[in-house]
Amino acid sequence: MKRRVYLAMKSLEEAKDLFFSRFGSGLRTGAEMARVEEAFGRITAEPVFAKRSAPSYHSAAMDGIAVKAAQTYGTTERSPKVLNLVQDAIWINTGQPLPEQFDSVIMVEKIHQIDKDHVEIRSPVYPWQHIRKVGEDIVATQMILPQSHRIRAYDLAALISGGVFSVKVWERPRVAIIPSGSELVHHRDMGEHETLDPGKIIEFNSVLLAGLVQEADGIPIVKDIVPDVEKGIRTALKQAIESDAHVVIINAGSSAGSKDFTVDAIGELGEVLVHGVTMMPGKPTILGIVEGKPVVGNPGYSVSATLSFEQFVRPLLYRLQGSSPPKRDTIEVHSTRNIPSKPGMEEFLRVNIGKVGARYVATPLPRAAGSITTLTRAEGIIRIPALSEGLSQKDEAQAELLVGEEDLLNTVVIIGSHDITIDILADEIRRQGFGVRISSGNVGSLGGLMALRKGSCHISGSHLLDVGTGEYNLSYIRRYLKGMPVSVFHLALRDQGLIVKKGNPKKVKE
Amino acid sequence: MKRRVYLAMKSLEEAKDLFFSRFGSGLRTGAEMARVEEAFGRITAEPVFAKRSAPSYHSAAMDGIAVKAAQTYGTTERSPKVLNLVQDAIWINTGQPLPEQFDSVIMVEKIHQIDKDHVEIRSPVYPWQHIRKVGEDIVATQMILPQSHRIRAYDLAALISGGVFSVKVWERPRVAIIPSGSELVHHRDMGEHETLDPGKIIEFNSVLLAGLVQEADGIPIVKDIVPDVEKGIRTALKQAIESDAHVVIINAGSSAGSKDFTVDAIGELGEVLVHGVTMMPGKPTILGIVEGKPVVGNPGYSVSATLSFEQFVRPLLYRLQGSSPPKRDTIEVHSTRNIPSKPGMEEFLRVNIGKVGARYVATPLPRAAGSITTLTRAEGIIRIPALSEGLSQKDEAQAELLVGEEDLLNTVVIIGSHDITIDILADEIRRQGFGVRISSGNVGSLGGLMALRKGSCHISGSHLLDVGTGEYNLSYIRRYLKGMPVSVFHLALRDQGLIVKKGNPKKVKE
Repeated sequence: MKRRVYLAMKSLEEAKDLFFSRFGSGLRTGAEMARVEEAFGRITAEPVFAKRSAPSYHSAAMDGIAVKAAQTYGTTERSPKVLNLVQDAIWINTGQPLPEQFDSVIMVEKIHQIDKDHVEIRSPVYPWQHIRKVGEDIVATQMILPQSHRIRAYDLAALISGGVFSVKVWERPRVAIIPSGSELVHHRDMGEHETLDPGKIIEFNSVLLAGLVQEADGIPIVKDIVPDVEKGIRTALKQAIESDAHVVIINAGSSAGSKDFTVDAIGELGEVLVHGVTMMPGKPTILGIVEGKPVVGNPGYSVSATLSFEQFVRPLLYRLQGSSPPKRDTIEVHSTRNIPSKPGMEEFLRVNIGKVGARYVATPLPRAAGSITTLTRAEGIIRIPALSEGLSQKDEAQAELLVGEEDLLNTVVIIGSHDITIDILADEIRRQGFGVRISSGNVGSLGGLMALRKGSCHISGSHLLDVGTGEYNLSYIRRYLKGMPVSVFHLALRDQGLIVKKGNPKKVKE
Repeated sequence: MKRRVYLAMKSLEEAKDLFFSRFGSGLRTGAEMARVEEAFGRITAEPVFAKRSAPSYHSAAMDGIAVKAAQTYGTTERSPKVLNLVQDAIWINTGQPLPEQFDSVIMVEKIHQIDKDHVEIRSPVYPWQHIRKVGEDIVATQMILPQSHRIRAYDLAALISGGVFSVKVWERPRVAIIPSGSELVHHRDMGEHETLDPGKIIEFNSVLLAGLVQEADGIPIVKDIVPDVEKGIRTALKQAIESDAHVVIINAGSSAGSKDFTVDAIGELGEVLVHGVTMMPGKPTILGIVEGKPVVGNPGYSVSATLSFEQFVRPLLYRLQGSSPPKRDTIEVHSTRNIPSKPGMEEFLRVNIGKVGARYVATPLPRAAGSITTLTRAEGIIRIPALSEGLSQKDEAQAELLVGEEDLLNTVVIIGSHDITIDILADEIRRQGFGVRISSGNVGSLGGLMALRKGSCHISGSHLLDVGTGEYNLSYIRRYLKGMPVSVFHLALRDQGLIVKKGNPKKVKE
């Protein structure tokens, strides 16, 4: 049986260099015109210059009366002046054009109305006071927006104001996503209660990748599932290359398993630049080029798929629009335990993070690349460099945040024995809209008490029976948390039992 | 003539209290089912529990051979074991189901293939090694997502994996935007080179507000322009209230000018909660309620419109989906000059920010509420509290960032005399993709040299003629920047002249 190996795995940096140097910094989708109403969030493909000045006429900047400034000179509290509301002044509202004979505005608050036709003023004004002059905001020909600029809401106002009603922007990058694998079943073809045949799994990576593409402002185009047949993958890749997609992702078929035809398909139709990256999760990544288009063989495990996407596809999608990905916030955290890691591999460790006392503590989640909940439940990711032997409890580490820093301040860290009651309480707190999050790690009752002692959590779930006294928890707390001020709450009573096969064939009895 | 006044202006905090206490924390749009493929970025309306376990069968976690662990016990480097590829072991790929007779996987890298039917191993394995067990990631009935949770890409994978193919989410809030004003012309009705009638302006606030609604994840519904006729505004408001919109914004007609009918219309159809807020820009804000729906009279000046929206409508739109607005990053900045402010008014000062030397310096932009470019050109906003008399050069101030902090590190601050060449250079730098931004403030040549001296900028544009020597700049630099190491570059030659009316009627000559 033919087995493939990663002949020359590349480090993450090497792989990025090989990939991004091939798709130079000038790589773009294509330019298109967008009407301003549809331009929010789009990125300019060229600088935008004003076609009109704004304002286009002198106008009142305040509600009040328009006057000729010279006529008000010499006015004081002691020698007020009465103005005639036809000859000397006229009522004017903010934004209204200034009649040609006037050059100044007196605010309504400064005026004393004597009768229908006369007002009194008690101080002078200077010329052009409270007037918005022509071109005060924008002068025709000035640059309103540079190129490679993401258009914000107020940029839209500046564009219209400057007489620009449509702008040249980069097309949003289109990404063809080809799910492959003979074990895959589309969830549309599944009844909610239908049992899967053994060995079959519901395809979800294409939806995950489509979400990641959307997050990076691209347009996902999800193709039909292709079984792991060499010709099928080649045909699907060829079609995607010939389509209007700017980037092609094949998921998965990128590991060294015997049925992984992706690398061959890319190699036959184009060129494989990288096969295998020393990152974990994400090792089975293929980077290639076919007819000038980037093709990525994305790993099958969903955490690997996500992390590989973020390293290679995400920056590419931003670059295709002439921009770069926003940086995630990072914070300094303390690991709750030592984490050895595999030298030579750059590891992306998913962690729960909470603020306990004055410091941020990070508790590692399971490292399984196939466990998507290690991402959904994580507050952050710690990168352990390839040259490091792991993470030490003694040192601080940098964590990239997957949630806002303000969320962390509102996060209650619960480590110990888990119970569904905690989920229900967490949900109830959210329903009440307090903005409080629960981050919960399951390490068993005693592990929870240890975490409390180390200052790694706020609350710990425990159900430790003292067989001597028949009492739960208290004797353990006295022993292990000696001297610590703790409160003990009784949360739930649990009935435990055994699940037996239908009909209890082994006759299990109490 | 009837004139209105703000009878009881409220502080920003009072106004928020009045408004948000009326629309309690339980305020929501309505729940709807969304298919997972369309659920990216949506917010859960209820907790989501798994319907299936994932994985649903034991499978290989590595490429290699499936074996029975007990059969490998006692194997060492010195006494390797040969396994028969039919009885003792079977080739297996990552993700493939584990045949019932096996309980462990040996990685392909640890195997030496002897011939087609035999492999040699040199170390033992323990039971369940490299096996993904049933429910390792998700156990049916466990909570996958809490309520009020914004669905990320990897959440989608967890949902499908847990057998959940559609989720209950909050509808995105629909916001009716009513532009009003008899001076307004829709840009669709304008030729690009068509001259505006005096007193007319191109309507752009509805596009601005639509962008702000999109930014807050809402759906803008822009209505036709309503002239400032009391009945017209009332009819438009009534129609919007009766539509499926969750929130209604009327722009503008919210100041105390004589033709501002918005407050009357809201009062007649419902209740005015606030008329006038002591914030600047943003004072002419009306907050009301009609038939249970929030109605906001949004100011006419575009900067006021934006800031008022951000204080009142933005939090409301998030609340309608059970979430809260992401906080903007803030940094400590030094103001380049003293800025007195109006006591009793909370001011939102737009500033240019750059890092010069070790500190972030902030240079205030013009304060005109009608100048949208003071927002488009700003890197941040400094809030000056109502009780303060302004900003002092000596103190640090907090600035809310409108750009990413990493953008600030790449910002070159140019203060002094401006020239369009700077815009063109700035654009050229962006075209080359270096990620460098130019923040440019126009304060004249001498102001620029002073800014350099104070450490407020990196570069300063100057064209100061020494009439004694006929030489530009150098003598001024020697005098004002004495002892400072500076480099002088010659950027451009400018021809200056006078613009005269067609035909030069006044016969202006050299």
